[in-house]
Amino acid sequence: MSSVLSSTAGCEAATVADPAKAVEAYLTQYVAERALPTNLREAVRYALLGGGKRLRPTLAIRSCEAVGGDGTAAMAPAAAIELIHCFSLVHDDLPAMDDDDLRRGRPTLHRHTNDAMAILAGDAMMGLAFELITSRLGHTELAARITHELATATNDMIAGQVYDTLGGVDPAAEPIEKLQTIHRHKTGALICCCGRMGAICGGADDEQLNAITQYAEAVGLMFQIVDDLLDVTQTTEQLGKAANKDADHGKLTYPGLLGVERSREEVARLQGHAHQVLTPLGDHADKLHELCDYLAVRQK
Amino acid sequence: MSSVLSSTAGCEAATVADPAKAVEAYLTQYVAERALPTNLREAVRYALLGGGKRLRPTLAIRSCEAVGGDGTAAMAPAAAIELIHCFSLVHDDLPAMDDDDLRRGRPTLHRHTNDAMAILAGDAMMGLAFELITSRLGHTELAARITHELATATNDMIAGQVYDTLGGVDPAAEPIEKLQTIHRHKTGALICCCGRMGAICGGADDEQLNAITQYAEAVGLMFQIVDDLLDVTQTTEQLGKAANKDADHGKLTYPGLLGVERSREEVARLQGHAHQVLTPLGDHADKLHELCDYLAVRQK
Repeated sequence: MSSVLSSTAGCEAATVADPAKAVEAYLTQYVAERALPTNLREAVRYALLGGGKRLRPTLAIRSCEAVGGDGTAAMAPAAAIELIHCFSLVHDDLPAMDDDDLRRGRPTLHRHTNDAMAILAGDAMMGLAFELITSRLGHTELAARITHELATATNDMIAGQVYDTLGGVDPAAEPIEKLQTIHRHKTGALICCCGRMGAICGGADDEQLNAITQYAEAVGLMFQIVDDLLDVTQTTEQLGKAANKDADHGKLTYPGLLGVERSREEVARLQGHAHQVLTPLGDHADKLHELCDYLAVRQK
Repeated sequence: MSSVLSSTAGCEAATVADPAKAVEAYLTQYVAERALPTNLREAVRYALLGGGKRLRPTLAIRSCEAVGGDGTAAMAPAAAIELIHCFSLVHDDLPAMDDDDLRRGRPTLHRHTNDAMAILAGDAMMGLAFELITSRLGHTELAARITHELATATNDMIAGQVYDTLGGVDPAAEPIEKLQTIHRHKTGALICCCGRMGAICGGADDEQLNAITQYAEAVGLMFQIVDDLLDVTQTTEQLGKAANKDADHGKLTYPGLLGVERSREEVARLQGHAHQVLTPLGDHADKLHELCDYLAVRQK
């Protein structure tokens, strides 16, 4: 993980050396400063700062840099999207949802505290994401634009969670179409949003924003197929969360529909496409090329 | 209810005839147009459009008019705050929280559907509130300012829910101070936000915004004391939700701390204060005066 997400090799003036560390420091400070009940603050800290790959903030910061921006310009949306991601994990883990005991190798928040606190801390993390954007970017047109990207993607993600766990997908669609609808909403929307918010904060023109959007869409789907593959090929210990859950719950997955080999081919195809659409951005996109390759071969 | 919240008496050019009806029509259209899984859309509709006093949207619209604005300019924040209010009710009613079966005289959403859907529909309503603001107000400084008001108040409300149900209030504080901390967060913040958002959308200057803020703070606390009083003096049938819950749960309340009579005196004091702070706004604030009087004597 750290070799790609924390690499300082090829560091330029406008490059954040370690996006994961930078966003954690930023979030730590934000959560410390915002007036909150002590128990709520602790719950938010537990869920937010207990490890994690920080893929989404990294993607936001690297996308900002890929269009020629200073990566620090994307810190607010990078932190906000991690708040959204962590809120979704906390709610997804609840007994009424996936009922998971383990997350990032530790007890899930509702096991560490209780169900009521996990519901409220999840709610607070979503709300804090939007407060953070407008606190840090001010009452600006940029803040409104970023808020709109983040809110739309958050709602698409929630819709994806409904599709995945409660149904609602067009019953006439082919299984692979249903699966793509689920993935595009459940994980794709938020990952795509990371790239777009980063690019917007970096001052992207239309062509650059389009390139980043296509890249992030490809990487988002690839990420989920890799996730599906890891679920069937890795152990719970390796993942730090329950393995083989998808088959246990009868969920639609890429390996379930296409088999492991064809799923791996699809990963390779999306990887190639992601590299290709970055072409117009030249060397600025080096970190995004690296990130794509890392995500294609990650083991957890 | 309808005599005050829907009154068309004294209707001026810039006055919304029936804010409750207008915001319901606005929300109905918004929820119909936003792409969502069918089951999620139905759950949101059930929770959002199943009655309710629409106090908060009414306050936003009337505050806009009270500073000389056209009430329709506050429709987006009025609708957004109702989404936030309804999200909080859905999550508060969950078995892990207050465990309520009845809301507005009908089964609560988790009883009507299931716990997972209620969690996700609540999440979606919060997210849709922020998407609505930036969809309808555009990528503008106004949208960013309104988003900031709404996000801050939402987080204060969530903090208030934690204070009320899970603790976290300064243990050294006097009981009445603890109670005020709870109320100021749990209901006060969102009600105050309604007034402020409305006034901002109406183009309020600093003096006007200050008057509306003081009014909404007084009315917000008054609203909660009346709520506490209704809980001990009304039946479940009259309220459309469980009565006598506060005492059953050993909660701090005004009648519990001060007794019924002194609580009523506090209502009268706040009512007088709310009227007084509106003085600089003149006749434009007539509807806010009426709203305050209605809220002081409401029976459910």
